[in-house]
Amino acid sequence: MQYSSCIDIPTNGFSDVIDITHRVEAILAESGIKEGIIVVFVMGSTASVTTIEFETGAIEDLKDAIERLAPMGIPYKHDKRWQDGNGFAHVRAALLKPGITVPVIDGALALGTWQQVVLLDFDNRPRKRRVVVQVVGD
Amino acid sequence: MQYSSCIDIPTNGFSDVIDITHRVEAILAESGIKEGIIVVFVMGSTASVTTIEFETGAIEDLKDAIERLAPMGIPYKHDKRWQDGNGFAHVRAALLKPGITVPVIDGALALGTWQQVVLLDFDNRPRKRRVVVQVVGD
Amino acid sequence: MQYSSCIDIPTNGFSDVIDITHRVEAILAESGIKEGIIVVFVMGSTASVTTIEFETGAIEDLKDAIERLAPMGIPYKHDKRWQDGNGFAHVRAALLKPGITVPVIDGALALGTWQQVVLLDFDNRPRKRRVVVQVVGD
Repeated sequence: MQYSSCIDIPTNGFSDVIDITHRVEAILAESGIKEGIIVVFVMGSTASVTTIEFETGAIEDLKDAIERLAPMGIPYKHDKRWQDGNGFAHVRAALLKPGITVPVIDGALALGTWQQVVLLDFDNRPRKRRVVVQVVGD
Repeated sequence: MQYSSCIDIPTNGFSDVIDITHRVEAILAESGIKEGIIVVFVMGSTASVTTIEFETGAIEDLKDAIERLAPMGIPYKHDKRWQDGNGFAHVRAALLKPGITVPVIDGALALGTWQQVVLLDFDNRPRKRRVVVQVVGD
Repeated sequence: MQYSSCIDIPTNGFSDVIDITHRVEAILAESGIKEGIIVVFVMGSTASVTTIEFETGAIEDLKDAIERLAPMGIPYKHDKRWQDGNGFAHVRAALLKPGITVPVIDGALALGTWQQVVLLDFDNRPRKRRVVVQVVGD
């Protein structure tokens, strides 16, 4: 049995971090699936999905680490070629990867108490993002 | 068809790396599933799951790289706000992500010969971790 | 319902980035599965799979970021112990992780227009890689 739906979200880019846990849980509830897995995947090459304790301090710390990983202030060959100015965003997204897969147990996401599902938008401008959620199980 | 179980593991934190391949294989055997996928996911926001050649040298090298990625010795806003002292652990876990999904072929994990499934605990104290293993297939 | 197949690919190592989107799509078409998920997973501990806009500039930028993450020119304990010379490759693969899971919607991968599935080979020599592709759904 499988069920899929989409979450469309406006973002601000620049490592915008958005808690989408409740929206993923709503799709899981719609699916009626009680045991299985749920894939949360963002379409596009300048965004990512992960989990974090959704708390201002930890989110700022994550943004700082991502800035160290692929700084905005260094030259990118993508920008030289395409003048997009978002070379850093492509690198960040490729390193962080587009999705996560979470077990579904007894109709709920198997997350820790302080563990939220978040969308990260790395682009250099506001975007409207589509997150695809696919549930597979019984 | 789906089958799930948990692995409860005491850890030492501070990038403790624990080989859980045999325990994951045991759950796969219990499931009776021969073809499909297996999700290995750690609950909580300061741990991760990946694969590595489980060999002392490579593990120490991974720990060093993780220390460079989100050093313990720099200030974290999470710590300033909550006095937890584990801001580095939250960042590491968000970057490394909580789980992996491995294909199951002919009743076995589709791993390379020198590729083990490991739990990484980034927290700043011993923890008892729960890893959720969900198998989906036929 | 599930279907699996393999993609065997010769690579050059040293962060070789290879677009495997069409080969993954071909396996999805063979499977006949229209709704579900597809797992793309590389066997071995010195390679990875992610998504990126497959464009020369972005690919070079990704390689540069991976070089910063786990440089070739620093000492690795794995090399000291085994004289393999590919300690950097083990670290890179453990950080980037071996696979991705992509939703399948209406018989297609739910990718963005500029988002390709790529194999990254981090090893320090040419390899023949096996990528396992597993489709689960209806």
